[in-house]
Amino acid sequence: MYLLAGFAASLGSSVGGDGNGHTALDRRMMRRCVELAKRAAGKTRPNPVVGCVVVNDEGLVVGEGFHEKAGGPHAEVVALKYAGIHSAGAKVYVSLEPCNHFGRTPPCVDALLNAGVGEVFVGMVDPDPRTAGKGVDRLKENGVKVRVGIEEELCQSANEGFSYRIRNKVPLGTWKYAMTLDGKIASDTGSSKWVSGEAARSIVQRVRSESDAIIVGGNTVRVDNPRLTVREYRSDGLQPIRVVMTSTMDLPKNARLWDVSDARTIVFTRVSAAESKPELYDHLLKCGVEVMLREEICPRFVMEHLYGEGAMNVLWECGGKLAAEAMRNGCIQNVIAFLAPKLIGGMEHSPLSNFGLQDMSKALNVCNVRFEQVGKDFVFYGRVENTG
Amino acid sequence: MYLLAGFAASLGSSVGGDGNGHTALDRRMMRRCVELAKRAAGKTRPNPVVGCVVVNDEGLVVGEGFHEKAGGPHAEVVALKYAGIHSAGAKVYVSLEPCNHFGRTPPCVDALLNAGVGEVFVGMVDPDPRTAGKGVDRLKENGVKVRVGIEEELCQSANEGFSYRIRNKVPLGTWKYAMTLDGKIASDTGSSKWVSGEAARSIVQRVRSESDAIIVGGNTVRVDNPRLTVREYRSDGLQPIRVVMTSTMDLPKNARLWDVSDARTIVFTRVSAAESKPELYDHLLKCGVEVMLREEICPRFVMEHLYGEGAMNVLWECGGKLAAEAMRNGCIQNVIAFLAPKLIGGMEHSPLSNFGLQDMSKALNVCNVRFEQVGKDFVFYGRVENTG
Ligand SMILES: [Zn+2]
Ligand SMILES: [Zn+2]
Repeated sequence: MYLLAGFAASLGSSVGGDGNGHTALDRRMMRRCVELAKRAAGKTRPNPVVGCVVVNDEGLVVGEGFHEKAGGPHAEVVALKYAGIHSAGAKVYVSLEPCNHFGRTPPCVDALLNAGVGEVFVGMVDPDPRTAGKGVDRLKENGVKVRVGIEEELCQSANEGFSYRIRNKVPLGTWKYAMTLDGKIASDTGSSKWVSGEAARSIVQRVRSESDAIIVGGNTVRVDNPRLTVREYRSDGLQPIRVVMTSTMDLPKNARLWDVSDARTIVFTRVSAAESKPELYDHLLKCGVEVMLREEICPRFVMEHLYGEGAMNVLWECGGKLAAEAMRNGCIQNVIAFLAPKLIGGMEHSPLSNFGLQDMSKALNVCNVRFEQVGKDFVFYGRVENTG
Repeated sequence: MYLLAGFAASLGSSVGGDGNGHTALDRRMMRRCVELAKRAAGKTRPNPVVGCVVVNDEGLVVGEGFHEKAGGPHAEVVALKYAGIHSAGAKVYVSLEPCNHFGRTPPCVDALLNAGVGEVFVGMVDPDPRTAGKGVDRLKENGVKVRVGIEEELCQSANEGFSYRIRNKVPLGTWKYAMTLDGKIASDTGSSKWVSGEAARSIVQRVRSESDAIIVGGNTVRVDNPRLTVREYRSDGLQPIRVVMTSTMDLPKNARLWDVSDARTIVFTRVSAAESKPELYDHLLKCGVEVMLREEICPRFVMEHLYGEGAMNVLWECGGKLAAEAMRNGCIQNVIAFLAPKLIGGMEHSPLSNFGLQDMSKALNVCNVRFEQVGKDFVFYGRVENTG
């Protein structure tokens, strides 16, 4: 169920434009759409997140909605239903172009036309080039005034993984790690509990909750035995798919990840590794773990498989060697780096092993860097340049 | 020569205290003292930096001064001379307790008494327990009103190295490094030009200019061939002492550091290493490089030697191995870490090698962390906890 928060008696001044002819009200309503949309972040795969607000003549919000999960009603339908008879002649704000095709539900364009809305404000067009613009066109053909591109950057960023997935036929990869001020993710003995503090770990929970899958290496299973489920941010039971990449299948018989009552677990390993460990292989299958076998495994193949599962956002929570393979395979676009103000020393556990670069002048730049202090730690969010 | 900047016609409101009975004027004047004092940062060894302001009845600044270099007049003397007859009955602000002993110049307490000043405001007492408080006492005994501890933290921080040196009989060690977002100071091939951008490098210049000596390892000389002189921030010709620590004396015959026309260079090496390279040893001596021989060399010994040279602030600009030795020897108190938003990958060049810690929970904390963005880079300043 979604909350109908943010219903304001009056929305205040709608004077002032942003130079594109959009009023302050338009931009405010679109920001509200994005806010609504993001409530379902991580739960809609393979669908985008979408929020919708219906506003009457007097600038009052008469309906709101967002797309909760694949198979559920689209944001526009929810908001129109709320607005009821107030939809007629109303302004409708929606963060993504309304659909014009039959999916699991009828097209939203039809719903808008049937409701007799007066004007539609679209945050961004559908990123799929095969359908982009068709929803807008059909509304226009039917005499509805349409404006496109309000708060577009914000709308784009809410569906970054969705758009990336459509353009590239693989999910967007985000690499997350926590390192000390001297650049270590663990001591030389492998001790890594805890690099960052509690406040930082609660951000990790949020990031996981917005991901469709989380990838770790076999070593992480052996050393940390993580659960990789999302606690605080998720009450609906939909959990990210947990993925283990191991070329050796050198895995413990008992691990938290083998309990699939909370979330799916997929192990990617080599045929020969599985053949050399028939008992473990059987045990995993009996536990309900999905085991994917290939002659050789590589990050690209895993990402392609997760694309097939509908994943849009995949989180790499792995050691330096697997991170380097993922980087070499072009499977990492975003970086979330936690920096803890402490010194451990050592040479063994670097966030990122060699992935083929030699000259410092050729280092990959991380752009659009945003950072914040969380407790005693710092976190940097950025985009790896030239990775699509 | 110092500049008489900051002379204000009126200093505005002096209303409002800080809870310690100090007025806004008092605190403002003391901050001005520290500002003046810091103009000589890195130039006064082994003396502290000190600033002094003389203020008349009406709250007007009638004299200012700071201690420029060892052997030169003390801040109080400069400021009193400027104030001339206006010193009589004036308020005198000084960032460090006035001296009460004959050094290379007569005691400042005498100068203050002779000038007939009305009241003296002292930022902090002399950190040397043998003399601390004696200057204040003698002023009081002679009927001068004295207040101690205005903006004390600021005053303490301006003389951090001076105080540390007195307490510990070694200079304060600051470790500076620049690393990528994946924790590397160089690529696996050793390429390190440049990790951080120009804006960050100009901060390095300032930090160097405030240091009495800069220590590098032999590898830095071989690979980077640095000059280690201060360009922008220093016009007086006084340069930090450049120190090379090398157990092998595997050093190039030609290196910028062997040109001692700008600044002194001291090479610390082992007796056996020098014996095995008699030609290089002679060459260095001929160049005017000072070569210090020991059976074994260690960071502690180098710091003790630099203490003998009067150094208060020593900058470690070395690779991970030497930094780890310095850390193990307790020769690093402060950290200045530059973080560049780029990824190079690799396993060879970490800022800090193993210095004996195994559990992440035992990692040394870096406290009092201050950070800023410089160009595209970030810089973190902090204090390594429990290092004196
Ligand atoms: Zn739809
Ligand atoms: Zn003095």
